Amino acid sequence: MSKKTINVGLIGYQFMGKAHSNAYRQVGRFFDLPVNVRMHTICGRNEAAVKNAANVFGWDNYETDYRKVIENPEIDVIDVATPGNTHAEIAIAAAEAGKTVFCEKPIGNTLEEAKRMLDAVQKAGVPHAVFHNYRKAPAVALAKKLIEDGRLGRIFHWRATYLQDWIVDPNFPLVWRLQKEVAGSGALGDINAHIIDLGRYLLGDLDEVCGLLHTFIKERPIAAEIDDKLGAKASDKMGTVTVDDASIFLARFKNGALGTFEASRFAVGRKNYNRFEINGSGGSIVFNLERMNELEFYDNSVPDETHGFTLIQATEGCHPYAGRYWPTAHIIGYGETFINLVADAMTNLHEGKPIEPNFVDGYENQRILDAVERSHASRSWIKM
Amino acid sequence: MSKKTINVGLIGYQFMGKAHSNAYRQVGRFFDLPVNVRMHTICGRNEAAVKNAANVFGWDNYETDYRKVIENPEIDVIDVATPGNTHAEIAIAAAEAGKTVFCEKPIGNTLEEAKRMLDAVQKAGVPHAVFHNYRKAPAVALAKKLIEDGRLGRIFHWRATYLQDWIVDPNFPLVWRLQKEVAGSGALGDINAHIIDLGRYLLGDLDEVCGLLHTFIKERPIAAEIDDKLGAKASDKMGTVTVDDASIFLARFKNGALGTFEASRFAVGRKNYNRFEINGSGGSIVFNLERMNELEFYDNSVPDETHGFTLIQATEGCHPYAGRYWPTAHIIGYGETFINLVADAMTNLHEGKPIEPNFVDGYENQRILDAVERSHASRSWIKM
Amino acid sequence: MSKKTINVGLIGYQFMGKAHSNAYRQVGRFFDLPVNVRMHTICGRNEAAVKNAANVFGWDNYETDYRKVIENPEIDVIDVATPGNTHAEIAIAAAEAGKTVFCEKPIGNTLEEAKRMLDAVQKAGVPHAVFHNYRKAPAVALAKKLIEDGRLGRIFHWRATYLQDWIVDPNFPLVWRLQKEVAGSGALGDINAHIIDLGRYLLGDLDEVCGLLHTFIKERPIAAEIDDKLGAKASDKMGTVTVDDASIFLARFKNGALGTFEASRFAVGRKNYNRFEINGSGGSIVFNLERMNELEFYDNSVPDETHGFTLIQATEGCHPYAGRYWPTAHIIGYGETFINLVADAMTNLHEGKPIEPNFVDGYENQRILDAVERSHASRSWIKM
Amino acid sequence: MSKKTINVGLIGYQFMGKAHSNAYRQVGRFFDLPVNVRMHTICGRNEAAVKNAANVFGWDNYETDYRKVIENPEIDVIDVATPGNTHAEIAIAAAEAGKTVFCEKPIGNTLEEAKRMLDAVQKAGVPHAVFHNYRKAPAVALAKKLIEDGRLGRIFHWRATYLQDWIVDPNFPLVWRLQKEVAGSGALGDINAHIIDLGRYLLGDLDEVCGLLHTFIKERPIAAEIDDKLGAKASDKMGTVTVDDASIFLARFKNGALGTFEASRFAVGRKNYNRFEINGSGGSIVFNLERMNELEFYDNSVPDETHGFTLIQATEGCHPYAGRYWPTAHIIGYGETFINLVADAMTNLHEGKPIEPNFVDGYENQRILDAVERSHASRSWIKM
Repeated sequence: MSKKTINVGLIGYQFMGKAHSNAYRQVGRFFDLPVNVRMHTICGRNEAAVKNAANVFGWDNYETDYRKVIENPEIDVIDVATPGNTHAEIAIAAAEAGKTVFCEKPIGNTLEEAKRMLDAVQKAGVPHAVFHNYRKAPAVALAKKLIEDGRLGRIFHWRATYLQDWIVDPNFPLVWRLQKEVAGSGALGDINAHIIDLGRYLLGDLDEVCGLLHTFIKERPIAAEIDDKLGAKASDKMGTVTVDDASIFLARFKNGALGTFEASRFAVGRKNYNRFEINGSGGSIVFNLERMNELEFYDNSVPDETHGFTLIQATEGCHPYAGRYWPTAHIIGYGETFINLVADAMTNLHEGKPIEPNFVDGYENQRILDAVERSHASRSWIKM
Repeated sequence: MSKKTINVGLIGYQFMGKAHSNAYRQVGRFFDLPVNVRMHTICGRNEAAVKNAANVFGWDNYETDYRKVIENPEIDVIDVATPGNTHAEIAIAAAEAGKTVFCEKPIGNTLEEAKRMLDAVQKAGVPHAVFHNYRKAPAVALAKKLIEDGRLGRIFHWRATYLQDWIVDPNFPLVWRLQKEVAGSGALGDINAHIIDLGRYLLGDLDEVCGLLHTFIKERPIAAEIDDKLGAKASDKMGTVTVDDASIFLARFKNGALGTFEASRFAVGRKNYNRFEINGSGGSIVFNLERMNELEFYDNSVPDETHGFTLIQATEGCHPYAGRYWPTAHIIGYGETFINLVADAMTNLHEGKPIEPNFVDGYENQRILDAVERSHASRSWIKM
Repeated sequence: MSKKTINVGLIGYQFMGKAHSNAYRQVGRFFDLPVNVRMHTICGRNEAAVKNAANVFGWDNYETDYRKVIENPEIDVIDVATPGNTHAEIAIAAAEAGKTVFCEKPIGNTLEEAKRMLDAVQKAGVPHAVFHNYRKAPAVALAKKLIEDGRLGRIFHWRATYLQDWIVDPNFPLVWRLQKEVAGSGALGDINAHIIDLGRYLLGDLDEVCGLLHTFIKERPIAAEIDDKLGAKASDKMGTVTVDDASIFLARFKNGALGTFEASRFAVGRKNYNRFEINGSGGSIVFNLERMNELEFYDNSVPDETHGFTLIQATEGCHPYAGRYWPTAHIIGYGETFINLVADAMTNLHEGKPIEPNFVDGYENQRILDAVERSHASRSWIKM
Repeated sequence: MSKKTINVGLIGYQFMGKAHSNAYRQVGRFFDLPVNVRMHTICGRNEAAVKNAANVFGWDNYETDYRKVIENPEIDVIDVATPGNTHAEIAIAAAEAGKTVFCEKPIGNTLEEAKRMLDAVQKAGVPHAVFHNYRKAPAVALAKKLIEDGRLGRIFHWRATYLQDWIVDPNFPLVWRLQKEVAGSGALGDINAHIIDLGRYLLGDLDEVCGLLHTFIKERPIAAEIDDKLGAKASDKMGTVTVDDASIFLARFKNGALGTFEASRFAVGRKNYNRFEINGSGGSIVFNLERMNELEFYDNSVPDETHGFTLIQATEGCHPYAGRYWPTAHIIGYGETFINLVADAMTNLHEGKPIEPNFVDGYENQRILDAVERSHASRSWIKM
């Protein structure tokens, strides 16, 4: 075809590298995009590992120095999927080189980094995106549509938890995600950031927050080798956990709704329990990522005799994204949320429209993370 | 008040005796009945036990010979809650004495008994009722209403299971419920009878059936003392199980719907899983006794975007019976189904209307049980 | 029998009066108590109404002046089930008269009232109880047992919501429950008090709290007649809502666990959604009052291959209270929680043991309600 | 690498063509296969359509005559994903040409076709596979493992339904799936075949069956163009539906278990409700394709106090296939079941082991479909 090709360079090849690669590989198979997406180059510091990743994930080339990727004139988009402490450096360099910049969330490890990143893309005038992929689950996009259609009326409550349990064992080692200098924060930036983004996406900006951070287990065995959370092994020496195991906060939204946000890695039995509930005068909505193809909807206009929460399988042709895949109730998985995000991003990129979510969302998210930390420190409410 | 009093004599004091007693005791506390219900006399063969039951359950008198209860001119209603092999004798005697007759289900142990019982009440012209109490769960009565209101349209499917697991252990003793001469049949008459009644109540009569009976464990220790299923203890001697452990059949309803009925006492993990699903052109319904305050309803007129099964909590003032008890979503229990049945029965008795369900239902139910047994024997379909 | 009889005088005959009456009437039918419970006298200011209540609920006598009930030497227990603004006066008078005092929750409308009430019963040396009935649901009592047995290990999180939606309609009138001078507070004292009690019962005392109160709809039509929440009708005049529609707070328990408590009457679709989740190192527990016969339990000692949340039907003979009623999975309802409470209370009363929960629990609960109000006012954490 | 490459030729490009293509494209990205899989050629009769499919799905070549694909010496595997009436011709030709043959289910439209197909692959000595993909859902494979590990003990019951509702509307047109000469049968071969395969996979072969077929709507508008079920449009003329809308049967398994199988396209509200339950002396299992990442397991060895159905998220590294994709509780979708099947097939092909499931399974499945049709015709039980 005569479609333009967008060449992508991906920095990072671990869990997020795998998910992003899958999205680039699959997006054109399910979506009728206005552009071709080429998996041009993947980049990582360990040559053997990145070479293997290139082969397994399907990239045409690999590099071990991200600067070479940025400098490559063939490449249009730099996608930053590395640990948080390297986001700013790479993303800013990419922006300054005039590249479109995609970035994993949270965009930076600190508010200052996020601010510099946003400034960089805005100053450079380059398109930018942040991978808050859960916005792109069909059920979440349906929730957004129901709200925009006024089906929930005036919104009173937002109630979100993101619960996991992968570090409950005191012998689980001190991996990079538990070190502030690499990860920025713990449950706060890793998973609370997701429900913060969903709250902002669905209800709008926050007005004020009040919350706490907590570390239940303060010393852990040092990991024998720094690895992703799935592959770490413990050693004999102990080190200090410098991030939060759990972060919880109350919020008031600018629209008057009250919110609760709770993220924890100590909720035994909860594996990926990203659940939110919204209560409005017109109805309510419940979503749970572990059953991501479903949305519960209570329609307050239904007569009492038959009202109740309706279990919508957001898998119909009429639902966002779902029609691109399989027939009704033939579910999709986690990987598809990234495909949907990339589909939207590539389409908007082609059409010259801002991508959503983008670095503004990433920055606003970071402002909230920062406010929660300050609230914790000051034991009081913080105005946004 | 100047309300008339209806005096009840209850024959039987085990599990069903407890449930019926509770219903008589409570009915006037929650329903504004046109009559007073007096717990006049309870009857059982073991004097010490029945005396205690009278005291615990709140009966004014007790007897050890059911004939004395029937002969007592003060008593208006004879309620037969004994094991199945004694129903016919007692119920027929009561009818012949001109008493109103209530009876536990199934009304007889054989079709012949049921026929004689129905003939007796009809010949005597006395009111009669059978305790198919599950009709009276608010959620089931709501299902009936939705069907009558046409919300399900043309009905295609009935799918019912009544699953329990209380005799899976091979050492569970040979209690009366496992002996054909006392119980009549096993899962068939004990629990399949319940879903047969619900099927008839909600969809109407059957046209033909085809099914099987099966006994997984054919020899069991003889119970040291014949007792209700909860109290039995095993002895050393073995005896033969003469009833079915499971009964399953296919059916065609007169209205054209297809039905499945499965009852088993060997469904490990299922305790009281009386579940039915109805699919019609206008919608579908699901009920499960273990969550008896809930009804799932799929309304096929809802647009695709938000259609799905709605979890109705049948606990609102607008739902059948529910408003007599507690505020919305303050649930009721198993015992209340009997209260509701007695409330309806006493009201209709006072108003001179037939009680529902009654011996006609009991007889029709027995006809189906009989047909399933014949289908099993002949390995073929049986026309009703 | 030669059992002693405990004579009860009940003050109040509305929703709680109905529930308490049912408990006194039924308790001896299901529990083998060491005492007889006599429903001696019910009391209310409206003679016609209280006379009717006496008849419907089954009380031997009625009065219109609570003082006469207290003065009656035949009466052993004074049960205060009136609106919150009258609790202190009645309960203190009863204590001073040497009566055993039972009281609905929250015991007072203010911390000062609760303190005077606790002082009164302690000074008088009379037994006392508070009707935090949800402790007595079999599934909740099972949760308590699992925790005491160490099955949850070190507890990290408490997460509770009590959500209702009965005042979302702006035309819902200004009933007494929306007036601070009668009700003391709104969602805070009415329903947050319940989950506070459950949190204290299961995890122990709180160390500090930080939260907010909020009123979404500040003006409502004045009710034509002050009535219980179920019977009110609106008039033309508007009045000011002086209580909270929602109250939410974060907490640290003394045992180191983090807690969230959210109560709202504006959670559309939630009718009686009293749900809590507890996460510990050994396992997790979930309870939801709308399915009050069930408890979800995650056992962290189960191997990964088959671990998950187990849906326990807390209806077995081995579960607390459940064996007193019906066979396994024949559920009980809301009313039975009061029966269980009264059974425990009467037993402990007879045995001279403290009843649980009692005025100490009521007072500690009120201390938390008070702290939440102060936290709201000061926008900061409050140490308990 | 020096891995051998397996070249695949796919016949068919509709719904199943899309699913199979995705599997071939993705399998090497998630599984570390001993071979490379090359998407060599896709084939369909409509050149424009198949050319587009080749491009969208990622095939290197396309053809319009399946014979050319079979004749191509580069191609190792012929995958037949066309409507059922063409399976036999293509598969037999492929076998005779010495190709490995993969085939969609049911392998033939009649038992005679299936027999010829099985004979052909056996005579040719070529490897063969049938796409009963649901065996390859992690939760189903886990069920298999639990059974093989003896966790379910002696199995008493199999209870399966496959319910859909896509043709309830009488105006839904007479697509090829409703025409016996093309589709072979209706719900029977399309979806009952799936649960028959699952039953055979998990419990073993059937001993006898007794059932019925039914067509609720016998005349439908002729489709303006024959298309897959998703794309059809109605015309003005009416035609006769020659397949079953629903098929239901009872079965006895050779291992003594009782089974029920129900497939319907008239279960309003059920979209892809492939659910089975197995009850054994050691425990029970429930699976529902609409929540395909979950398996419910009741372990009968757990003490009464905490027994119940456990909701296993079959997404852990220890679960079959699941570890190839994302971290725990990051779910996979329908498409991945095909990837898993192809991974197993390619591995076994490389290792010279029989692929499972294969044409023997396809043939045995067809024998059951045939027996059900004969049972329907004879209104009696049919021995297998």
